[in-house]
Amino acid sequence: MKIAIDGMGGDQAPRVIVQGVQKAAAMFPDMHFEIFGDQEKINHYLNEEKNISVVHTTEVITGSDEPVRSIRRKKDASLVVAARSVKEGKNDALFSAGNTGALLAAGTLIVGRIRNIDRPALMGLMPDLKNNGQPTVFLDLGANADSKPENINQYGVIGSYFSKTLTGTAEPSVALLNNGTEAGKGSMTTQKAYTLLNENPHIHFAGNIEARDLLAQKNNVIVADGFTGNAVLKTTEGTALTMMSLLKSAIKDGGLKGKIGAYLLKDSLKAMKSKLDYSELGGAILVGVKAPVMKTHGSTDAHAVLQTLIQTRKILEDRVVENLVEFFDD
Amino acid sequence: MKIAIDGMGGDQAPRVIVQGVQKAAAMFPDMHFEIFGDQEKINHYLNEEKNISVVHTTEVITGSDEPVRSIRRKKDASLVVAARSVKEGKNDALFSAGNTGALLAAGTLIVGRIRNIDRPALMGLMPDLKNNGQPTVFLDLGANADSKPENINQYGVIGSYFSKTLTGTAEPSVALLNNGTEAGKGSMTTQKAYTLLNENPHIHFAGNIEARDLLAQKNNVIVADGFTGNAVLKTTEGTALTMMSLLKSAIKDGGLKGKIGAYLLKDSLKAMKSKLDYSELGGAILVGVKAPVMKTHGSTDAHAVLQTLIQTRKILEDRVVENLVEFFDD
Repeated sequence: MKIAIDGMGGDQAPRVIVQGVQKAAAMFPDMHFEIFGDQEKINHYLNEEKNISVVHTTEVITGSDEPVRSIRRKKDASLVVAARSVKEGKNDALFSAGNTGALLAAGTLIVGRIRNIDRPALMGLMPDLKNNGQPTVFLDLGANADSKPENINQYGVIGSYFSKTLTGTAEPSVALLNNGTEAGKGSMTTQKAYTLLNENPHIHFAGNIEARDLLAQKNNVIVADGFTGNAVLKTTEGTALTMMSLLKSAIKDGGLKGKIGAYLLKDSLKAMKSKLDYSELGGAILVGVKAPVMKTHGSTDAHAVLQTLIQTRKILEDRVVENLVEFFDD
Repeated sequence: MKIAIDGMGGDQAPRVIVQGVQKAAAMFPDMHFEIFGDQEKINHYLNEEKNISVVHTTEVITGSDEPVRSIRRKKDASLVVAARSVKEGKNDALFSAGNTGALLAAGTLIVGRIRNIDRPALMGLMPDLKNNGQPTVFLDLGANADSKPENINQYGVIGSYFSKTLTGTAEPSVALLNNGTEAGKGSMTTQKAYTLLNENPHIHFAGNIEARDLLAQKNNVIVADGFTGNAVLKTTEGTALTMMSLLKSAIKDGGLKGKIGAYLLKDSLKAMKSKLDYSELGGAILVGVKAPVMKTHGSTDAHAVLQTLIQTRKILEDRVVENLVEFFDD
């Protein structure tokens, strides 16, 4: 099991990337990690681990680079060379904490689409806050700005395969993000997607779900067009961040009483924050391509890198991509 | 200034509706309120106020009624008769806390669209949580499931007119909800909408805004296609509610220490909750029709009814609808 690591992507690269890889390398001696990037900088953090190697590259794709153009022009970028090693079968999966658009482009254009999957999608895990149960698989989070009903129907199948591996559900239920729960609701796209999902014999379709209920529902897979999925993900983040900052300033404005109260509540607030911490759940995955293409936030830490690499191992062990290739190959 | 009130819409109708109207009637002796609904039930709460009258109706549209069909079939429903009184010029504006879909249908089909406005939209006010400044006008919140770029461009003009009245901004800035801030980002619909808004000489276009920044930004008007606007609104509500319930259970699980902490923080948390309380800002408005069509949540209280009626007065005083009719009439 060999993982290609983009050593230069993310705000604190290569340090936190190397540190996360070191944790994974110690945990899984049977895996090999190949880190692509500035050899000198990366070696600075390494301790001659047997199952970590470094491939020197001279270019870096930054957060502000235009995705498709940078993939094409920066031929010696850590991400591009790492993706090529996966394409050529030298590695089994690709990991990056860098420019999301560039990773999507590298996954789609270099690693390559699975035959008959028209539009790879970005998939994430949402914490099940209310029921404290299994996290929900949610796609497309924005790989596509114009998902067609046929794409959304494929997301249902792809999401079900990943849900089985990532959450251990035997028969994952699939819900469609829509602007009402009744059948017949929605845009032209979601109405058509509903019909296709409902007639799809390979999934367990549970009908529509509204955005209000996303954090407190019982389905295993949520499918959405990429534009809405992206908007909903960012709204959740923005609202949660705004509320945490409101809470902080409410405490601050509460004077001594507020400060003592906050001190006594510290453990409770910490427990709440950890429930909201998506990094516990690992990264997002570009699905529909010929190998696992994994990402974490640019502001990631070594722990989140490790979580994502643990997920990568699960996906490879369960041969999820091979199963998808087989499913769509007819 | 005469307002038609649907006395039977909402979870606690007619009680909270009548109580809210009574507050408004006491505050504004120069206004008249005509309440439509079950005369006996409504009279039970009235005290012979001079500027409140009652029109008896025999049918009620419930929350589960199919909007367009119920508007057509229940010809003596409180909402339908109230809407007709506006259409016929007997009243100047329509208010309801009932079935949102039915109110949109009554507004569009009975009160009627303004000439050259293709798609009326649902407009709301978002609190500016971060900057404690003016609330932002946000449309379309879901009157349309498939907004076209031309519709979104019209939302920019309509939103600017209402923003001037509701927040007192002389030159409201308009931002487009999109999946990236740079020009050129987005779906086919938002890309085209961007171009139209950017070329529109009648508004002050400020470019794209991402959903993450909706609660903490400085624009006066946000425009979105109705499907995404609806999803974003419901995600905000869902996330805020989930976080409040997480906070509650975190406090509960924190034992005695947590309870004392929560007691000391009570005032701070209350201040935070009131910032999140959309009812302070009044209701949503169906815009693009020939009279102000106002709604509040079904779970509304008398205070929120009053706030919405205060808004209605402002809109009528400033002749916003008349100005829109004139603008689009060429």
